[in-house]
Amino acid sequence: MRIRFLWPGKTKVPEIRGLETIYTSRIRPLAKCEIIVTKPAKGIDEKSGARIRDIEAEGLEKHLGNDYIICLSDRGKEMTSEELARFLERRGRQSGRGLAFVVGGFLGLSDRLLARADVRLSLSRMTLSHELCRVVLMEQIYRALTIVQGRHYAK
Amino acid sequence: MRIRFLWPGKTKVPEIRGLETIYTSRIRPLAKCEIIVTKPAKGIDEKSGARIRDIEAEGLEKHLGNDYIICLSDRGKEMTSEELARFLERRGRQSGRGLAFVVGGFLGLSDRLLARADVRLSLSRMTLSHELCRVVLMEQIYRALTIVQGRHYAK
Repeated sequence: MRIRFLWPGKTKVPEIRGLETIYTSRIRPLAKCEIIVTKPAKGIDEKSGARIRDIEAEGLEKHLGNDYIICLSDRGKEMTSEELARFLERRGRQSGRGLAFVVGGFLGLSDRLLARADVRLSLSRMTLSHELCRVVLMEQIYRALTIVQGRHYAK
Repeated sequence: MRIRFLWPGKTKVPEIRGLETIYTSRIRPLAKCEIIVTKPAKGIDEKSGARIRDIEAEGLEKHLGNDYIICLSDRGKEMTSEELARFLERRGRQSGRGLAFVVGGFLGLSDRLLARADVRLSLSRMTLSHELCRVVLMEQIYRALTIVQGRHYAK
């Protein structure tokens, strides 16, 4: 299975970047895994949220190719860790397409990208910080892969 | 408002400890905030989960006093960030009792402690790592306090 995590702009908080590295190295023995940091919108007033999301969507779309796209969205579907594991297992069986997990920037993802997604996934009913969201997602993918492969979860 | 976060055993992952420090410093201008690390159970086989949870509950209970107790539990109630904000606002108005947010260790919280809690809160339908759970909770409390006080959320 090939899993890619995509988001616009390098994660700013060094501690969260450190956690991204930790989870990448935990996922790698279980699946091909890569983080792709796409071009963030810069120098645009935050009030122009839709424009920022559109610019960032363009950067993300360049990398999506034929991947099966899972966009994180607070209006998405909630799953348990077990359900996420079964989802990954089914995707692994059903096709050779890679999985692209897409997390937005501070202002979220564009409607166009959300509409294109094969699945819209919500990690919580709560609104998580977009950077924290990245590592919660990675931890969940790691956890789900340990469930699928019957491995011990490394604390 | 006085908010305390309690958990057994120091957080092992340095990056997560770093995030605890960041969120403590963000919460402090908005509410009194303290992390209390209680005694973890040590040297007991993980198969004896109930015994570990009982020992850790004893350590936690010593600090709970008259606090209003919110235990994190995956069988707890889910809230949106807005609902958490309204909850904090109501608690702030209704009583002088401090709020104690209690997060378990690797094996979770004892049934006795969960039964004693005023509220059982779930951050996600997914099972989060107990350490990551600590910072997701802190970020949510920070976010909820900015909502209550009409402040700008610092990215």
